[in-house]
Amino acid sequence: MTYCVGLKLDAGLVLLSDTRTNAGLDNISCYRKMFFFERPGERVIAIMTAGSLSVTQTTLARLEEAIDDDLADETTSILLAPTMLRVATIIGDTLCRTRREIAEQCRDLRQQASASMIVAGQRKGGDMRLFLIYPEGNFIEATEDTPFLQIGEHKYGKPILDRVVTPATSLSDAQKAVLLSMDSTLRSNLSVGMPLDLAVIDRDSCSVTTRRRILDGDPDFAQMSAAWSAALRDSFVKVTL
Amino acid sequence: MTYCVGLKLDAGLVLLSDTRTNAGLDNISCYRKMFFFERPGERVIAIMTAGSLSVTQTTLARLEEAIDDDLADETTSILLAPTMLRVATIIGDTLCRTRREIAEQCRDLRQQASASMIVAGQRKGGDMRLFLIYPEGNFIEATEDTPFLQIGEHKYGKPILDRVVTPATSLSDAQKAVLLSMDSTLRSNLSVGMPLDLAVIDRDSCSVTTRRRILDGDPDFAQMSAAWSAALRDSFVKVTL
Repeated sequence: MTYCVGLKLDAGLVLLSDTRTNAGLDNISCYRKMFFFERPGERVIAIMTAGSLSVTQTTLARLEEAIDDDLADETTSILLAPTMLRVATIIGDTLCRTRREIAEQCRDLRQQASASMIVAGQRKGGDMRLFLIYPEGNFIEATEDTPFLQIGEHKYGKPILDRVVTPATSLSDAQKAVLLSMDSTLRSNLSVGMPLDLAVIDRDSCSVTTRRRILDGDPDFAQMSAAWSAALRDSFVKVTL
Repeated sequence: MTYCVGLKLDAGLVLLSDTRTNAGLDNISCYRKMFFFERPGERVIAIMTAGSLSVTQTTLARLEEAIDDDLADETTSILLAPTMLRVATIIGDTLCRTRREIAEQCRDLRQQASASMIVAGQRKGGDMRLFLIYPEGNFIEATEDTPFLQIGEHKYGKPILDRVVTPATSLSDAQKAVLLSMDSTLRSNLSVGMPLDLAVIDRDSCSVTTRRRILDGDPDFAQMSAAWSAALRDSFVKVTL
């Protein structure tokens, strides 16, 4: 399993992903699920992934190959595509093609091979965009009404986002919100695990402003998690029925 | 969908269920999902249901028929079974048989027909017990380590239970905990809906001590829900990263 969450706020984009990958309960590994494609000041694209590792790795490798190809053009390279919508389309098409090929390979085993992605970014002169790309390649986009998108194990961490995140939320509060959302998820689903990757893309910077890996035992995260637990228990005592 | 939760505490049993039943998104109805079988002072059994309404209604009707049967004995009637374990076994067997018959009827339509139940109760001279009965008829039981069981949409409402419920929790705090757990679920899953049924079975009373239907717009529930939202937002502001 996986938990990745992206926020599109007035002040910028905030992204958080875990790193746990598992094939069954007895085969657990650590893989980065957040990737950047960047021409600082010109264009920044972040991709977060959930699902079959063979599908997500092959999709990313193909996106990179397409960028490096001598014949790369605006229809094939996400660094040349003229809009973020075209970027999402290229990623969706690549994901769908890869998923279909691998699903076909796995057919005899009756195994599922699927994946979804969150794509966030901005190109110079364009708006910030945040997309959730489905396994079939189609996608939806974050809006004013729903400024966040989640993939993977989304349920445990959704109530806190529903309650505190609006487009006006500051980047600092937003980082706190996604980390508390992740904290609830980590507590309830063993297949979501540390370390975490956190990134912030300030509006109009067209670059990754903050990038942080939060390791297991990170004192700031542990302190925040403990303080949140204590605050919840305090609130529980104060609320009356 | 459905959300039902049961707590087994030192002081008694606390049960909460919603009442929404849906066949698709465009066919929504209200059905009670909490049922009592009681000989006050001698034996109390509460059953909460999730899943296919035809399976749960038929299972309950058969349990009632078995109680009323002239030939009822301790192997067929949950009011005569000598222990709560035997009660759970009778319910599990009836559920499994009913589910299989209905699944067979639905086979041509490739429709699922499944259901699970929470069974709580006590007989005079025995311990309080709380079981979760799976569609196959097997079951698990709440323990000191995990004093609560959930069926239906369990994820949104689990974090609050994990944080505040222990066997020592008072019956009054426990009612608050299950209502807050339901509140989070109601906000996130449209297929869980008001009104709610809340019940408390005091230890060794062998009867339903408190039984309350909470209607949509109930002022106490609305006030608690608003206070909890406010407390969460306050806590969010106070916690630092």
